[in-house]
Amino acid sequence: VIKFASPTSAGAECIDPDCSWVEQWVHRAGPRKQIYFEPQCVKAGIVTCGRLCPGLNDVIRQIVLTLEKYGVKNIVGIQHGFRGFFEDHLAEVPLNRHVVQNINLAGGSFLGVSRGGASISDIVDSIQARRLDMLFVLGGNGTHAGADAIHGECRKRKLKVSIIGVPKTIDNDILLMDKTFGFDTAVEAAQRAINSAYIEAHSAFHGIGLVKLMGRSSGFITMHASLSSGQVDICLIPEVPFTLDGPNGVLRHLEHLIETKGFALMCVAEGAGQEYLQKSNATDASGNMVLSDIGVHLQQKIKSHFREINVHSDVKYIDPTYMLRAVRANASDAILCTVLGQNAVHGAFAGFSGITTGICNTHNVYLPIPEVIKTPRLVDPNSRMWHRCLTSTGQPDFC
Amino acid sequence: VIKFASPTSAGAECIDPDCSWVEQWVHRAGPRKQIYFEPQCVKAGIVTCGRLCPGLNDVIRQIVLTLEKYGVKNIVGIQHGFRGFFEDHLAEVPLNRHVVQNINLAGGSFLGVSRGGASISDIVDSIQARRLDMLFVLGGNGTHAGADAIHGECRKRKLKVSIIGVPKTIDNDILLMDKTFGFDTAVEAAQRAINSAYIEAHSAFHGIGLVKLMGRSSGFITMHASLSSGQVDICLIPEVPFTLDGPNGVLRHLEHLIETKGFALMCVAEGAGQEYLQKSNATDASGNMVLSDIGVHLQQKIKSHFREINVHSDVKYIDPTYMLRAVRANASDAILCTVLGQNAVHGAFAGFSGITTGICNTHNVYLPIPEVIKTPRLVDPNSRMWHRCLTSTGQPDFC
Amino acid sequence: VIKFASPTSAGAECIDPDCSWVEQWVHRAGPRKQIYFEPQCVKAGIVTCGRLCPGLNDVIRQIVLTLEKYGVKNIVGIQHGFRGFFEDHLAEVPLNRHVVQNINLAGGSFLGVSRGGASISDIVDSIQARRLDMLFVLGGNGTHAGADAIHGECRKRKLKVSIIGVPKTIDNDILLMDKTFGFDTAVEAAQRAINSAYIEAHSAFHGIGLVKLMGRSSGFITMHASLSSGQVDICLIPEVPFTLDGPNGVLRHLEHLIETKGFALMCVAEGAGQEYLQKSNATDASGNMVLSDIGVHLQQKIKSHFREINVHSDVKYIDPTYMLRAVRANASDAILCTVLGQNAVHGAFAGFSGITTGICNTHNVYLPIPEVIKTPRLVDPNSRMWHRCLTSTGQPDFC
Amino acid sequence: VIKFASPTSAGAECIDPDCSWVEQWVHRAGPRKQIYFEPQCVKAGIVTCGRLCPGLNDVIRQIVLTLEKYGVKNIVGIQHGFRGFFEDHLAEVPLNRHVVQNINLAGGSFLGVSRGGASISDIVDSIQARRLDMLFVLGGNGTHAGADAIHGECRKRKLKVSIIGVPKTIDNDILLMDKTFGFDTAVEAAQRAINSAYIEAHSAFHGIGLVKLMGRSSGFITMHASLSSGQVDICLIPEVPFTLDGPNGVLRHLEHLIETKGFALMCVAEGAGQEYLQKSNATDASGNMVLSDIGVHLQQKIKSHFREINVHSDVKYIDPTYMLRAVRANASDAILCTVLGQNAVHGAFAGFSGITTGICNTHNVYLPIPEVIKTPRLVDPNSRMWHRCLTSTGQPDFC
Repeated sequence: VIKFASPTSAGAECIDPDCSWVEQWVHRAGPRKQIYFEPQCVKAGIVTCGRLCPGLNDVIRQIVLTLEKYGVKNIVGIQHGFRGFFEDHLAEVPLNRHVVQNINLAGGSFLGVSRGGASISDIVDSIQARRLDMLFVLGGNGTHAGADAIHGECRKRKLKVSIIGVPKTIDNDILLMDKTFGFDTAVEAAQRAINSAYIEAHSAFHGIGLVKLMGRSSGFITMHASLSSGQVDICLIPEVPFTLDGPNGVLRHLEHLIETKGFALMCVAEGAGQEYLQKSNATDASGNMVLSDIGVHLQQKIKSHFREINVHSDVKYIDPTYMLRAVRANASDAILCTVLGQNAVHGAFAGFSGITTGICNTHNVYLPIPEVIKTPRLVDPNSRMWHRCLTSTGQPDFC
Repeated sequence: VIKFASPTSAGAECIDPDCSWVEQWVHRAGPRKQIYFEPQCVKAGIVTCGRLCPGLNDVIRQIVLTLEKYGVKNIVGIQHGFRGFFEDHLAEVPLNRHVVQNINLAGGSFLGVSRGGASISDIVDSIQARRLDMLFVLGGNGTHAGADAIHGECRKRKLKVSIIGVPKTIDNDILLMDKTFGFDTAVEAAQRAINSAYIEAHSAFHGIGLVKLMGRSSGFITMHASLSSGQVDICLIPEVPFTLDGPNGVLRHLEHLIETKGFALMCVAEGAGQEYLQKSNATDASGNMVLSDIGVHLQQKIKSHFREINVHSDVKYIDPTYMLRAVRANASDAILCTVLGQNAVHGAFAGFSGITTGICNTHNVYLPIPEVIKTPRLVDPNSRMWHRCLTSTGQPDFC
Repeated sequence: VIKFASPTSAGAECIDPDCSWVEQWVHRAGPRKQIYFEPQCVKAGIVTCGRLCPGLNDVIRQIVLTLEKYGVKNIVGIQHGFRGFFEDHLAEVPLNRHVVQNINLAGGSFLGVSRGGASISDIVDSIQARRLDMLFVLGGNGTHAGADAIHGECRKRKLKVSIIGVPKTIDNDILLMDKTFGFDTAVEAAQRAINSAYIEAHSAFHGIGLVKLMGRSSGFITMHASLSSGQVDICLIPEVPFTLDGPNGVLRHLEHLIETKGFALMCVAEGAGQEYLQKSNATDASGNMVLSDIGVHLQQKIKSHFREINVHSDVKYIDPTYMLRAVRANASDAILCTVLGQNAVHGAFAGFSGITTGICNTHNVYLPIPEVIKTPRLVDPNSRMWHRCLTSTGQPDFC
Repeated sequence: VIKFASPTSAGAECIDPDCSWVEQWVHRAGPRKQIYFEPQCVKAGIVTCGRLCPGLNDVIRQIVLTLEKYGVKNIVGIQHGFRGFFEDHLAEVPLNRHVVQNINLAGGSFLGVSRGGASISDIVDSIQARRLDMLFVLGGNGTHAGADAIHGECRKRKLKVSIIGVPKTIDNDILLMDKTFGFDTAVEAAQRAINSAYIEAHSAFHGIGLVKLMGRSSGFITMHASLSSGQVDICLIPEVPFTLDGPNGVLRHLEHLIETKGFALMCVAEGAGQEYLQKSNATDASGNMVLSDIGVHLQQKIKSHFREINVHSDVKYIDPTYMLRAVRANASDAILCTVLGQNAVHGAFAGFSGITTGICNTHNVYLPIPEVIKTPRLVDPNSRMWHRCLTSTGQPDFC
């Protein structure tokens, strides 16, 4: 049974009695003939949470432009994520077409981000105090969970506030969604890092290039970046276990590459091989477990392995994370952000709340938030794409 | 009734009697359990025809790598399109993993291109003389028509040669196909030209930036580039007629933009507004009608219009065509090229001929060539994407 | 005692009798111990004239930052060149650290440019009406002539206004100056166009790439861009005459290149070979003679020549002008702009007027404007650099 | 009579008694009327040592092209630095115009590099065995010391081998030389890292961006990159000591920036603040002392400091080293490399040995190797450039 996701179904104020997520689990995104809010009276807020992701400014911009097209006059940005709701010195940022015109030309978030949360109750107090009618929340899984809780609290308090999520995960790991914004840009930007590692490894004597890319639980960036590069010899992702030592291990294969090609290039997702790292119980401000650094670990293991077998090696480790995620969106992501921003506004005006918007099997849809945050989307080790990646790298089964 | 498209259905040598395009119009692309050729004995040729398109080298490279994976030893490139079949000084280029390793890092075609054709009979004579078993033809509509005719002639001569097309159109205008390689790169590269025009127009007094992009019959590049830029005020494509003069014309809207914003930015597809140009009966070497230059025409019309109404204007016209198509493929296209190259080889080994490969409704498929070359794929003026473009530009109906 | 120096006004109105350009022709640029203006009371204006050039925003930004360091509170931008002085709807733009913080990240001019001039008397009236104490004029030769005339008129009216020029010529053709801002960026940006032409020419059958670069009277951009590319076969500049036809002509050499290499790459400055073009008496708004397009002329000559000798050729002509000059300054130019902007302000506070600032034989200096605008700086055909360019292209003497 | 000149060998083995570095310390670089070697008989070798630096391939390419212009037929590359002289499996790479044509389009070294040395005697044995007449050595201080020793040994053995150095230091820290190749490119490439750190710091709540750049003993890259960025708040270089703690320390200034601006951006040279790091006696293969990582140290100090004073901070540390040095040379460096490569060959043909070539006070010269390797060139803390950097960052004196 799918839970409620629309203020329209909450009671008398519902203008669309037919709207029910129980009967219709997924809704086509887009403008509706009837709108639930009077644009002139609407105050809309936008907030960006979590880490940076290319395209945040494109989505902010498009939400503002689309709200103005509806006739909304009162649009504000909440600074630095949910923190902006309860820290007094973080004032609302007035937003309009003029202010946002060129923000998409730079990376980052025009509104600032921050990680970690706050009491849901405090946030809803703040929403009430600010008299927001709509809140657009750009963030990842944790942020969406927060948005859903805010939505629930608003319903409990019978507030007519529409809470609309826009999934922000550079890792492309949102359930049901074909592609999330920023992913394409990150894969493109990773080419520069991979090519640098290739040049370093290829020019060095027995050079081994090692690039760590984003992907805590899913290896989409690493897989796509390796595949598009065409230069990667070993691709390691969280979804596919691997052994380092032993006759089928990564280290033995590296030996083989050094012997035959003279150099090697590895690409590893940050969440890969966590079983080889010392467990840490630390969590970051967003409640995510702090991962030990697989890149540093691999670098050390490789160095000591080649020292042990008395073969020269020259390991070059690149962690380009910030340089991938702080760039502006590429053209493909810019279009995606435009669509998402427009649909987020259409969804709010349609009277939805507690939903998020994205591309599902090539269709732009609205989905209830809980559906997409149950678990991260993962690379299927039996998929065509992973097999293409294996074909491209030529790597064996490391088990 | 769909026509024959496989050597397998040509007679006794067919190893797969079940394969019939009559019963099954479209085939899923990918490797087959049984292969029709003995890899060790295969001689495979690759030829690139027509204009440049980002990704040609990626496809060539992937075809070679995949052929080698099958065990093929004898791979050659035919230089400068079909011309290489009958000009003696254009020798076959031996291809192998080592030769193609880094060709994807540069734009252009490693094998050279040329436009225009030759007698089909002569080409098939040359194929026989060279003892080719497979021919991979990278090209557009005209080239695919040629490939289909070659396939037909080979069948007539009962040659066991597999002719496999890979659609090359930067315009993304192939029927039935979601996306063709090079398109994404071109849209990305167009951003630089559009932004230059924006900077020029915005800095000038009453500046009008005008960018002409590729698209003889379809406006996909222009529409996507305008949409992702977010800075374009007027987007003109072949599929949507427009008037220049009159109260609803483009020129009047330009006046309005100059009055209100102080500057304007236009993006026009090369095939747009052909009705305003002097008819020319000339055709180029590939038999395509030579288009008069809509960009130059618009530039002159705008200049004279503003002179007439005695308003200062400063028109900056950019035609970035060569700078868009000579670049290397971006990451997204590189992956697409990898998939296409691999599937082209799988298709040949499966015994298909007269087919082309691409993504159709998210699936990688083989299609009979005639199906995709009937007519170019066009932007649907009623589509969501075109409406999004109109929303983004804010342009009125120019009729 | 605060000094007031002027190169042109040797008479009684000079407040600082010690300062004499007669005795000391060139002054070292930089801060002075004594300043001529009371910063709190200063109103400073900035104006950018002529065509775009990478780095305009860097200079504007640095002038503002440096003025603020001196304590100036009242800084304004004059919009769209001298036009902003007398068109009422072009309001002064208030400038401060916050406004200019990131303007250097985009190309163009934050203040807008325009070409052409106005009555010097009207401009000085406007300067008086606005109560400007300092005017920073960013522009080329024509603009500097205007700045010098404004300086002269201010002296005549006994106004204590400091007129400081910053030479803006992407062509690097200012007398006595080692390098002007934007040149390095343009040479860098030209590589993309040259490489596109190379890829097009190399991939085509008998391809001839032709790139036209900026340089009305001097060939510095074309020479440097050709030299750094290393791919150019023929480099044509205004300073070195050439014949097209005949046994020593460019066309014959192209034949030779097509015969031996199969393709050729040419780079031509816009001012080269003007003797081959139809004379036009038209001048643009700045009074510069309108040049006919040597690129188009060469393209047509080459095409018809190869048609005549019955040899296939495929000419690709690229004019990347706007895409070179609308980009942001590269790192090297950004530093140069920083130095120029700081020194312009130091010069004004030192009481200079009618001067311009630049690097002269590795030293940052102030020079009287008339010294630098007598004539454009030209490539010396006997210089090492031109000979290196000839060595690199391998081109013969086209005479 | 052809002369043979040597700066260090003043004795009997000098073939050209007129040539004396004692009388003429520095020689103008360039071609000579008389050449010392018979080009047809020359075998020339090229070797690249040490770390990567943008432009290596440009220099290799230009040396080959220029040798061919002289008529040299026998040109070889020694693989992976001096290691290639004595490891049998590292074969000589035959070099010619065709092989090197496009190597400048990629970063790295076409010949491979390696660090560390070998017995000078063994190397000279190898030179004799290979019958090399000229050896071009591209490398840094250590490599030049090696080249000088090789030169000395060759003199001792009365070999007529010309040993010519080309200084390769991305840090621009060669005595007497205005600029070394790769420096300009690195400063340019650093902008991307600095801008990423700026975006990260600016978007984060109390974000502190920290970028570590190359520069073991000199801060040129860090100073220039900070200056051209215009976004850096704190610039730390080896030549200028700083305190971290205390009222004048870096940490206190960071507090101030967080309080007033909300974020801060730091740029630190790898060799800065070594006194704060645990001494390590380790040296790398080239004999350079292994530096502890000042970036990591600063990151930890900043984090713990803000924890201690109970102020939120969010430190983003970027080490872009490999991504700066593995890129291809920019246009400005490409020209410099062209000049250096040509002059290296002219120097060898002029009969010089034991020299290196570079730009000294705007002149292209030959210098005896010992003159340039005595000590690294350093940023002068009293120079205009450092003061401009301080003005740009606004940082106080950290002492």
